[in-house]
Amino acid sequence: MTARIATVEAAGRQHYGLVVEGGFVALSDDFPHWPTLKAVIEAGALGELVAAGTGRAVTHREGDFTYAIPVPDPGKILCVGVNFPDRNAEYKDGSAQPKYMSLFPRFASSFTGHGQPLVRPPENHTLDYEGEVVVVIGRGGRRIAAEDAYDHIAALTLCNEGTIRDWVRHAKFNVTQGKNWDRSGAIGPWLVPFEDSAQLDEARIVTRVNGEVRQDDVLSRMMFPVREEIAYISTFTTLEPGDMIVTGTPTGAGARFDPPKYLKPGDVVEVEVAGIGVLSNGVVDE
Amino acid sequence: MTARIATVEAAGRQHYGLVVEGGFVALSDDFPHWPTLKAVIEAGALGELVAAGTGRAVTHREGDFTYAIPVPDPGKILCVGVNFPDRNAEYKDGSAQPKYMSLFPRFASSFTGHGQPLVRPPENHTLDYEGEVVVVIGRGGRRIAAEDAYDHIAALTLCNEGTIRDWVRHAKFNVTQGKNWDRSGAIGPWLVPFEDSAQLDEARIVTRVNGEVRQDDVLSRMMFPVREEIAYISTFTTLEPGDMIVTGTPTGAGARFDPPKYLKPGDVVEVEVAGIGVLSNGVVDE
Repeated sequence: MTARIATVEAAGRQHYGLVVEGGFVALSDDFPHWPTLKAVIEAGALGELVAAGTGRAVTHREGDFTYAIPVPDPGKILCVGVNFPDRNAEYKDGSAQPKYMSLFPRFASSFTGHGQPLVRPPENHTLDYEGEVVVVIGRGGRRIAAEDAYDHIAALTLCNEGTIRDWVRHAKFNVTQGKNWDRSGAIGPWLVPFEDSAQLDEARIVTRVNGEVRQDDVLSRMMFPVREEIAYISTFTTLEPGDMIVTGTPTGAGARFDPPKYLKPGDVVEVEVAGIGVLSNGVVDE
Repeated sequence: MTARIATVEAAGRQHYGLVVEGGFVALSDDFPHWPTLKAVIEAGALGELVAAGTGRAVTHREGDFTYAIPVPDPGKILCVGVNFPDRNAEYKDGSAQPKYMSLFPRFASSFTGHGQPLVRPPENHTLDYEGEVVVVIGRGGRRIAAEDAYDHIAALTLCNEGTIRDWVRHAKFNVTQGKNWDRSGAIGPWLVPFEDSAQLDEARIVTRVNGEVRQDDVLSRMMFPVREEIAYISTFTTLEPGDMIVTGTPTGAGARFDPPKYLKPGDVVEVEVAGIGVLSNGVVDE
């Protein structure tokens, strides 16, 4: 089975290590020179970490730990907007495929970990889900060619790119304030090392709300494939180890239904990609 | 004179300390528990730092150090767009004052320090300047009331919010890719402790290119004053010590001239606010 590398919290401390049958194998105390998974990725040492943990006894049983976002301190989180053909059509502005991708940053504080609830704020209740694949940069670089892009990916994970939909439209430009509510989205459950291009090229992403399928599409239909995302983004900004690119969501977010189907307390959202895992989050009112 | 607290580089090392007559007084070695000015701000200790450095001998003479951005590792940099009435009118879309401010994040890597050149990339030459005041958050918080907002500001500095203008318009939404070119902007020259509301309320900002005044306005004309910026931003995201808000630029950026007056190698841009200082940067081709 593919290794599952996570950051968790237990008894007030943060650990990284491996998720295995029956629980979690904490490894961070063995590597004090790597304070978080970002440092492990920077050292190109995810493989070393997996080797160190394989066969080791569980240190924390299921229920004795909670998941944090896998890289708790990423330098940059860049999200790609409107990246599936039907989503572009959903905007009903008659535009053909755009020439360039839409990009917006999110702060790490806008995400929670797997199994933790998304937070619906009192100011606005249009909390919506967006299931996406996340690529985690391994080797950094600037002006990375599309054909070399996969060599710069260390790992994959998933994102529920939770959004306060009304606030996306507050401003004349930019979706910043709809996309950065504290703990309105989630990243996880864990990192899966990226070893084979099929992990992306053949990935199918499914998002369910209370078991009902809302999004179901294949990454091969993206208007801007991951290779182009890395090439374009690294044209203007140097990508660094641990940076995350949230690659875009298929059609089927709650806002597109009539009437809209926004998330409410008690709902459970699952984002699933075979070979990566299932990112599952409840919803609570703040 | 108001204290001037800077982060500098000398002989391959980064230091923080005070800028004084004749040079720089490095103080960071005295405070190993505070690795950068972010930690000093988090400890509420800018005053302690100033006291420790006052009267001390210069450790680095003028010319023996270069300026970095004052808080080299801010958690968040949030910029406010289109915040002066004439700039809104410049968009010529007939819109009245917007109800909410436009916000976009920038990565720290998109800025260089005082005295360092802005970098014009080979991909596009529409490099433009925008002079702005930066507020640096001291005490963090969420849902900060406008009337309490000034209590959360530790210091002020300046920004040349350098932009690759053509790339701002690449995408259907969001200005991310025009606003985040590596070292396309600058922050500095130093932090000035925020001790009196007049430092903001009576501030006048002037931007010059090769000595010619291009922007000249008072912060009191902002459509969204600093108090409202802090209140609105902290509604959705928890502000943390060291976070920076780049508060908005007056009319007069190079893009607004006919023909546009973009920056070219050899130009010198100065952003000045009395009581804060002059942020000066040249321009080089990458």
